[in-house]
Order: sequence, then structure tokens, then C-alpha cells
Amino acid sequence: MTDARIGECRGHDGTMPAGVQAPSQTTVVLRDVGPRDGLQPERPVDAVDRARLVDALFAAGVRHVEAASFVSPRAVPAMADPAAVLAAIERPADAVVTVLVPNLRGAQEALRCDVDELTVTISASPAYNRHNVRRSIDESLAEVASITSLAAASQVPVDAVVSCAFGSPFEGDLDPSAVATLGDRLLDRGCAAVTYADTTGMATPRRVADLLAETGVGVGLHLHQTRGTALLNAWCAIQAGVRRFDTSVGGLGGSPFAPGAAGNLATEEFLAVLDDVGFDTGISVEGLIEAAAVAADLVGHPVPSTIPRVGPRGRLVAVED
Amino acid sequence: MTDARIGECRGHDGTMPAGVQAPSQTTVVLRDVGPRDGLQPERPVDAVDRARLVDALFAAGVRHVEAASFVSPRAVPAMADPAAVLAAIERPADAVVTVLVPNLRGAQEALRCDVDELTVTISASPAYNRHNVRRSIDESLAEVASITSLAAASQVPVDAVVSCAFGSPFEGDLDPSAVATLGDRLLDRGCAAVTYADTTGMATPRRVADLLAETGVGVGLHLHQTRGTALLNAWCAIQAGVRRFDTSVGGLGGSPFAPGAAGNLATEEFLAVLDDVGFDTGISVEGLIEAAAVAADLVGHPVPSTIPRVGPRGRLVAVED
Repeated sequence: MTDARIGECRGHDGTMPAGVQAPSQTTVVLRDVGPRDGLQPERPVDAVDRARLVDALFAAGVRHVEAASFVSPRAVPAMADPAAVLAAIERPADAVVTVLVPNLRGAQEALRCDVDELTVTISASPAYNRHNVRRSIDESLAEVASITSLAAASQVPVDAVVSCAFGSPFEGDLDPSAVATLGDRLLDRGCAAVTYADTTGMATPRRVADLLAETGVGVGLHLHQTRGTALLNAWCAIQAGVRRFDTSVGGLGGSPFAPGAAGNLATEEFLAVLDDVGFDTGISVEGLIEAAAVAADLVGHPVPSTIPRVGPRGRLVAVED
Repeated sequence: MTDARIGECRGHDGTMPAGVQAPSQTTVVLRDVGPRDGLQPERPVDAVDRARLVDALFAAGVRHVEAASFVSPRAVPAMADPAAVLAAIERPADAVVTVLVPNLRGAQEALRCDVDELTVTISASPAYNRHNVRRSIDESLAEVASITSLAAASQVPVDAVVSCAFGSPFEGDLDPSAVATLGDRLLDRGCAAVTYADTTGMATPRRVADLLAETGVGVGLHLHQTRGTALLNAWCAIQAGVRRFDTSVGGLGGSPFAPGAAGNLATEEFLAVLDDVGFDTGISVEGLIEAAAVAADLVGHPVPSTIPRVGPRGRLVAVED
């Protein structure tokens, strides 16, 4: 495939997605959620060490990082001391530092720090939302509205991450138009962007196409590897014209609350296939391999993704004979 | 292959790919190489147990199985007693039982058994070929010709598996037209089919497209998970019109001789996305989960693929509240 053909930006039915501007077609934004989603289910590590991982990502050329979560440390011990993480990182001038806030109180704390974006979560699955935060969808929407109002006063945009957007382990398949409607309601409540998450690995190329047909391609995707489909789904979304993705260095991750959750789309595995066709991310695979080594050191076990172990495809071995 | 060609071959929206005949368009043949490529790098297990895995695959609806290898048991202890495997399996009437033969002597032994197809291997990479079998490409082609002559007398077709078809860990990228020319030479020497193998995980969507542009889509693909791309590459090939794949139950596999090799494309992970858009394989995901359990039992460790662990996407959990 050539750059020219990338520029065609085909949707799954071969049509041109509406609303994709030429200059941004070959730029793909990868928001690395490794320091948050990646470390969240792991044994807790110090804030300073988490900041070290963020800095390693910056060194690799990553410019969007979800660096911390203002969730209760009793609920998620690995995310304790988010303000200390933010204070310790050395941010490049063009960095976008995102933090997850679970509620208005978390947003209040977050906005006292130097943050560029908030993420909030809400589920497309009412049962999952109730299971996870003990709220109805309407109650969560009201909380999101209070967060966006507060953040607007600080001129900080809010990205709403819609979990279970491709199906729920409780209800099964969800109507893509209903999922897209939830996205619209989030925009109505002041969110600047919506990211659809495949929380438990129910997305497939068909389900990605079905949702994008309802939402358009100006969305973010947050994909998990629960059924081995994260990279495939990301590629299909790229083909359709989506240019914004959450990924996690080393493929670490998985909600501690989602039944059957597994790691995130690995930043370096996605980057490798994007690089191979000339998309521009500003990120270096070799730099990510170094950041993955930091991540493995922090969590005390090898990361799940492959490239930190075997190297990029261009890495040759000596001929022995 | 071009994006346009990818766009023409879309099983899930009902359009007809150009050049693919209606009766076969939605049929995909998965040849499960788990009992051979899957078990080859593992601790040896008895022939009768390997036959049990073949039978579990038959029970799941798999009809093409690479059941054994007539390689030297000194070179690959896990593949000892191939005739005993073949004698022990209970084959359905419509089964196609394939065995790998490394040379003419192996073919002679194999053809004394009840086999439906032979596979032979040759590398697109001269250095890899020499590293693996201590032969030049021309020497390997001559051996293949002697095997196809012998097999023709028994009316047994030979499928040539071309290793390192998407790049070599020794030489790096290979010219796709040169790889396709090797395929032509194999057909000239009596092979009935050619399967291109991504032995060390160097295939990407772009490299798959580049090779298929030279070979056409009437080929088989044998994909590995070394850089996490097996499912992605398989899907891109499906979109282009390829309908024949080697897969391995549980994702087991990896050559004991290939630097950096990792497991094969997992049959059940590929099947899940094929099922989701209505391709016909005749195979049951639930049956494969049972076969993967047999495989895990044989090798004494969990299989690498995800679906045996988490179940298919339709498997729900009870709502707790």
C-alpha cells in the first residue's frame, strides 16, 4: 500500500468517510494509556516510578499520555498519589497530559494539577455501568455534565470514554445506534471528544464497521486484546479513517473490574504496522522498546506484547554459516 | 495488491470480489497444523496422544489437518513415530490428512501410510534455506521435484510451503516478485499448490498486499504471531480474496530452528472473526475450545491463544446486582 492509497481513507464499504481533512489523513494520534490503564491492575509502584514511565514515553516521541487516575486509592491502590506523578514528570512543551477522573471530586483534585485533558468513563452497557460505578446511565451523564462544567472554567477539555461500546459481557451485543446516541449525549453535556472502548474484547472488524457507520470516524478507539483482536480492529478503523487511538506501551492493561479483561492494544505493535505504510505518529519503535523495558521493570514481569521481546521486523540476525 | 482490491473483496457486506467464483467465495479452508507445527517445538508426547488431538480437531469440524511430520526423530524428537499417529486417528470420510516430508526418504515413508497430501518446505531466503536444511534453493527444488514425481504415482498432491516469504531474519526484505517466481518454479516441478509462510513474523498488511499482487490470491498463507500480526495479516488476505490458511489450534507452534519464531495464527481466533461475518469453514468455535484443552493437556502448559481462556464473544457473565 502506498501513501496515496492511505489518502483515500476508505470506509469499510469503500466509500470516503465524511469530514476527514487531507492534511491530517496520514497523522495518527496515539494516546498512551500505559501509565494509567497499563499499571492499574498491577502491583502498586511509587508515583516517581510511574513518572519515569511517562518520561520514557515522552523520550520515545509519544506526546499524548494518560498519566494518572484520580480514582480512590482504596478502590485502585496502584493509582495512588496521582498529583505526585504529575509533579514528577518532565513534560515536553507540546505534550498533552491526560488524567482519568471518576467523578466530580476527582475532577476537582485533578484540575488543581497541571493537566491538559480529563477522561471520564461511562458505559454503553447499563448493567456494566451499574456493576462498575453503581450508577444508572442518566446518573453518570449528570456527573459528566458537572465535570465538564468545572473543567470548562479551567479550559481543560474532557474526553468521554464509553466502555463496552462493542458489546457487554452482561447484555451481549448492544445496538450501535444506541451507543452512538450515548456519544451524542456526552457531546451535548460538554465533552470535547468521545472514545469508544472495547472493554472486554467483543469488537470485531464487523462490529467496528457497524459502530463507525453510526458515529463517523472522528472518534477515538480504545481497544483490548481479550480475544486477540486489538490490532486487527485498530487496522480496520485506520482503513475506515479513524486517526485517534488509545494504546498501552508493552500491551499492559486490563480493568481490574471487567470480567475477562486483558491487555490493551500495544503501542509498539500498532506503531510497527503504521510505520510500515508511512503514517506519521512522531513515535520511535526503538524508543517504545526502551519504554516497555521500564514498564516491565516497574511491574516485575515481562510485558505481553511481542516487539519488546523480538525487536522490530528490520532487526536481523547474523548468518551463522 | 492494492487497496482497491482489498475493497473489492468484502465478505461481510455481500459484494462479490472480482475473480472469485460464487460457490467458493464464502468458504474458507483452514488447515490445522497444530498436531505438527504446534507440537513440534514442545516436549515430545506419544503418537497416540497426538492422534487424540487430531481426532479432537475432526470432532470440531476441521477437515484439513497436518497430522504428522516424517522428519528425522533425532532432529525433531516431538515428531517421532508419524506412522503411528496416522494409524491411530479416526478419520471422517471427507478428511484431508496432510503430512510434512523433509526429503525424498520422508516422502517414501509417508506414502506407505494413508495420507491425502504432502507438504514440503523450501525457503524464499537462501540463507535461511542453507541454515535450515544445508541446501541451496536449486538443490531444494530438485528434491521437491523428486518428491512430486514419487507422490504423483500415488496420486497424492504436494503443497510447497515457502518459508520466510515476507522477509528473512538473515537477509531482511525479499523482493516479492522473486518470491512469487520461486512459487512458479515449485508449480513447474509438480507441486499442486503453494503456501507462503511468515516464518518469523515479518509480514504486515503492506507486505501481504505486495506479495499477493505478484502471486494472485489462489495461494495458501501460513502466518505466525511473532510480532502480533498473524490475525491482522490473515484478515487482510481474506479481504484480498485468499481462502486457504494454515492455522494452529490454541495458537501453538513455532519452528525450533527459526530465530525469533513464535506461535501460529490461532485457529479459534481467526474462526471467531470469520464466523462474525458469515464465512463458512464448517468448524465450531466451541469444538476448537475443547481441542485446545486437549492440546494444553498434551503440552503441559496453557495455550497462547485467548479464546480458550475467555470463551467466544457471545459468552456472557451473570449480572451480579
